[in-house]
Amino acid sequence: MFQETQPRYVWHFEWIDPERFIGLAIRKIHFIGYSKYQFVEVVDLPVYGKTLILDGKVQSAVTDEWMYHEALVHPVMLTHPNPETVLVLGGGEGAVLREVLRHKTVRKVIMVDIDEKVINIAKKHLQEWHRGAFNDPRVKLIISDGREFIEKTKEKFDVIILDLTDPVPGGPSYKLYTYEFYSTVKENVLKSDGIIVTQATSCAASPKVHAMIHNTLKKVFKKVRTYNVHIPSFHTIWSFVTASNKWDPGSLTPNKVDELIEKRINGELKFYDGETHVAMFSLPKHVRKFLKEFKEIAYDKKPPLLPM
Amino acid sequence: MFQETQPRYVWHFEWIDPERFIGLAIRKIHFIGYSKYQFVEVVDLPVYGKTLILDGKVQSAVTDEWMYHEALVHPVMLTHPNPETVLVLGGGEGAVLREVLRHKTVRKVIMVDIDEKVINIAKKHLQEWHRGAFNDPRVKLIISDGREFIEKTKEKFDVIILDLTDPVPGGPSYKLYTYEFYSTVKENVLKSDGIIVTQATSCAASPKVHAMIHNTLKKVFKKVRTYNVHIPSFHTIWSFVTASNKWDPGSLTPNKVDELIEKRINGELKFYDGETHVAMFSLPKHVRKFLKEFKEIAYDKKPPLLPM
Amino acid sequence: MFQETQPRYVWHFEWIDPERFIGLAIRKIHFIGYSKYQFVEVVDLPVYGKTLILDGKVQSAVTDEWMYHEALVHPVMLTHPNPETVLVLGGGEGAVLREVLRHKTVRKVIMVDIDEKVINIAKKHLQEWHRGAFNDPRVKLIISDGREFIEKTKEKFDVIILDLTDPVPGGPSYKLYTYEFYSTVKENVLKSDGIIVTQATSCAASPKVHAMIHNTLKKVFKKVRTYNVHIPSFHTIWSFVTASNKWDPGSLTPNKVDELIEKRINGELKFYDGETHVAMFSLPKHVRKFLKEFKEIAYDKKPPLLPM
Amino acid sequence: MFQETQPRYVWHFEWIDPERFIGLAIRKIHFIGYSKYQFVEVVDLPVYGKTLILDGKVQSAVTDEWMYHEALVHPVMLTHPNPETVLVLGGGEGAVLREVLRHKTVRKVIMVDIDEKVINIAKKHLQEWHRGAFNDPRVKLIISDGREFIEKTKEKFDVIILDLTDPVPGGPSYKLYTYEFYSTVKENVLKSDGIIVTQATSCAASPKVHAMIHNTLKKVFKKVRTYNVHIPSFHTIWSFVTASNKWDPGSLTPNKVDELIEKRINGELKFYDGETHVAMFSLPKHVRKFLKEFKEIAYDKKPPLLPM
Repeated sequence: MFQETQPRYVWHFEWIDPERFIGLAIRKIHFIGYSKYQFVEVVDLPVYGKTLILDGKVQSAVTDEWMYHEALVHPVMLTHPNPETVLVLGGGEGAVLREVLRHKTVRKVIMVDIDEKVINIAKKHLQEWHRGAFNDPRVKLIISDGREFIEKTKEKFDVIILDLTDPVPGGPSYKLYTYEFYSTVKENVLKSDGIIVTQATSCAASPKVHAMIHNTLKKVFKKVRTYNVHIPSFHTIWSFVTASNKWDPGSLTPNKVDELIEKRINGELKFYDGETHVAMFSLPKHVRKFLKEFKEIAYDKKPPLLPM
Repeated sequence: MFQETQPRYVWHFEWIDPERFIGLAIRKIHFIGYSKYQFVEVVDLPVYGKTLILDGKVQSAVTDEWMYHEALVHPVMLTHPNPETVLVLGGGEGAVLREVLRHKTVRKVIMVDIDEKVINIAKKHLQEWHRGAFNDPRVKLIISDGREFIEKTKEKFDVIILDLTDPVPGGPSYKLYTYEFYSTVKENVLKSDGIIVTQATSCAASPKVHAMIHNTLKKVFKKVRTYNVHIPSFHTIWSFVTASNKWDPGSLTPNKVDELIEKRINGELKFYDGETHVAMFSLPKHVRKFLKEFKEIAYDKKPPLLPM
Repeated sequence: MFQETQPRYVWHFEWIDPERFIGLAIRKIHFIGYSKYQFVEVVDLPVYGKTLILDGKVQSAVTDEWMYHEALVHPVMLTHPNPETVLVLGGGEGAVLREVLRHKTVRKVIMVDIDEKVINIAKKHLQEWHRGAFNDPRVKLIISDGREFIEKTKEKFDVIILDLTDPVPGGPSYKLYTYEFYSTVKENVLKSDGIIVTQATSCAASPKVHAMIHNTLKKVFKKVRTYNVHIPSFHTIWSFVTASNKWDPGSLTPNKVDELIEKRINGELKFYDGETHVAMFSLPKHVRKFLKEFKEIAYDKKPPLLPM
Repeated sequence: MFQETQPRYVWHFEWIDPERFIGLAIRKIHFIGYSKYQFVEVVDLPVYGKTLILDGKVQSAVTDEWMYHEALVHPVMLTHPNPETVLVLGGGEGAVLREVLRHKTVRKVIMVDIDEKVINIAKKHLQEWHRGAFNDPRVKLIISDGREFIEKTKEKFDVIILDLTDPVPGGPSYKLYTYEFYSTVKENVLKSDGIIVTQATSCAASPKVHAMIHNTLKKVFKKVRTYNVHIPSFHTIWSFVTASNKWDPGSLTPNKVDELIEKRINGELKFYDGETHVAMFSLPKHVRKFLKEFKEIAYDKKPPLLPM
């Protein structure tokens, strides 16, 4: 929309903290406004293209959302021997759904998101993300607080995917990163041989928050694994944690990953394969050290909170 | 220096391009001014701490320079069976020297840097980087244009480390990333069983420039390898390329890396070990694809240039 | 729209030049997008409230547009003994119309604006400005290039008001500030006893451009007068120039101004009265000196241009 | 220092409030650091040139400090029939001294400033401001809190000039804008036929703070007068208030001002003369209205405070 030779007038500031921000010229506005829960921007950014931003934080950009969503979904889905039922908390863009539905084993996906307006905005403006996934007959969409849902539901799932916004003070998500939450997940909604994965902020940008999530899951589950992906539009590396009493994606060999992709996923992946798997699950020395040394656990009364 | 409750008055803007910048409050100024070749800032930044910035680009921050410098130096040094003579181009902070000198095999290091003022600033303000390395008797420091040096020198080296500023229009470094340059390196200054490594911008932030560097090295050397490290203060992943007619760090197993570190490096590393090695040298699928498909070569007349 | 405690995510940058800008958080977006001629923002800004911005420059804010528009319109309207016919070039917000129509003497106003989209945006979003003025039966709105209009029209006017955007390279307005333009105005569209006024950038922020406009009018008309108003949302003082072969608003006494307002203007003014008139038409010593010394004239081939 | 074609890396942000700031590229750094009381910057800014900034607020720029200082000093000095003794509180740059010393009547000037470091920085870096005024034998410099000084001194003065930083929470100046302070000034340090002037923030940018200062002086003195000057480097209009039981600068005619300048001031003024005087002391209608309507008084317990 903006002409190439013009100075840039409208900017998005992604504040990391009061002393650091990333300034991004907005090339086109699809939507800017409030939902009931958060401040929503769908804008075209330079290089990153169309981007969803919630409460000032880039959630996913069309040019690299596939890195994030393939990384979030496929390791746990392929580690589980036969994932038929999947619960997704968050994931308003519909791209987690999209990736889950590519798995031939999947029969049923329940997606629970608190923010109906974001989903409606996604349906209208983020077709590149969901690509019709909301209309798949295997999908059931429930507008609800995720915490409430897992406390009340009678269903159990093979795989649970937590695609939540970051835990920030007053935000809609911080109660979905605590010991109480994960305990309820394990007891109430995950099958005994199931596996979960959560986005877990960044072991580089917010190592303590990441480590708290990792530690808290470790207090609840037997096998817990951190892995990392660099997402260009996040301007940092992003971390995820898997947890299960039975499965550990870290034990998959590259060849096994390639074989499972071939056998169980429809279409071709752009980001994830055996070598990518190795890159993600191999952690630098200082990260391993920090995870070993930092002991804090997150509770409802003391959730893991990012500064902004 | 700044008080916690104050608004931030003095900022560094790291421009990625005219539509993207990273705004970082400056907490303390150690030095800001021009050298003959570039604009130099040594400032305390939030989170990253003391940081050297050249022509507006963060070169290294005290809190993560060890990731960058261990990643740059050790893979090639350990891949070579007995690196005794090392040539460093650039690396004004003295941290490449510091890491090279930890290798027990090293007898002689020549460091060539064009910018004497930056080196003097480093000697005065960046003790945390060089830790006295400039005074090691094995080191010889030469103030010279790197291109000129390699064209004239009569010496040959086991390992050559190119720790250059990014290739930008008008900057001091862009002629050290071309076919002509690498050919001269191979013919004139690298031993036939030697190995080189260069910083190679970011395969994420500037994939074309990175791929040009990779391709150009591949046109000159038999074995070429890209690897990546996430550097927090760079706000992106950073890439390096090794090149040799004989050695390929990608073939080292994690156990071999750990064994070589134990045997040949003094002191303890903070970043690099066997698992880190695997993380660095495993490339995501789309990066491998891009490196396969993008064919451009860099020549003196058509150097690889970043936008800013 | 934004909550008080939130960090600010969406900003407008008003670039003064490449080294100076004013950063203003956007509280609400009414419209952001391109017209055929310019980039248009109608947004709520802090303190200034709803604001029209064209090509990145604040045109008028609801909290102080009355300072600008009263200052632009009333001095010439009251200096002329009986202004019945008025031509307005520019003034898309409709606020010049609004002020002109308050004058009891006015029988006919022709407004010529190049940018129909801006006028439609104003009609929809800027009711506080026009307050229905576009519907007044005395008004005729013509969508046309102003320069073309004055070259072709057969009508003549008592008062001509030039409420144009600043002269910037490539913008729609710079040809309405030249010797050729003013000569045509005098010969073709202004009655011999008529008077014109133009916005004339800022004698403080762009003294040379202002002086060129002043000088160029002086080459065409016998009586020329600069006056100034401080407009908070412009972050500087703003200048206007009147020109006529017969009338000079500078000769009005404060009492005369108050008397004329009482007699000829409907409703109450918020900004302009006798004392305000004195404040506006009294120029600081250095401004008078600069206007005396700076001699350049603006021609079509050498228009007065702001840097951005 | 910076080259013309470079992007700008180091910026000063002048925060007006958390939603508004002015971004100014820093071209050269003369001094940046803390004094005991405030954060001090002496930097070269674009257009404004060398500039003193205290706690993030531009105090005076070499290109327009003469507007500010002539406006602050000369009206009261010329209104008083024979100012021999002058007290200056604040004014660390030395430019108030400079202007005061041009008055032929002056025999003694006491300057009281709390911040010795700022004065030493001024002596070293701001020669264009003081031009040796600190060395004039009529001057006595006292390092002290201004409030404390006026409570303890036994001397009385013809003219008192308050060239203070803005009243901000926690800053060194807010107790020099209250009823208690002005009462002590009147009773203890101003001769009964003396006159004072204070900088009084901006009736445009902070109308309530300005009006509080005006009102508070009116509660203490019989004759109180607000006047305004546009200072380009402040990006707004600036206000001053005079107060006296005997004298009112507003009653001076332009001719009288010109005559007094001629008779009593050495050298030529650049800003102030009869017409400038009229421009400054004529207030726009809405400012007069606001001053009439806003009734708050500033007390030690309830000082007038700017947001940042």
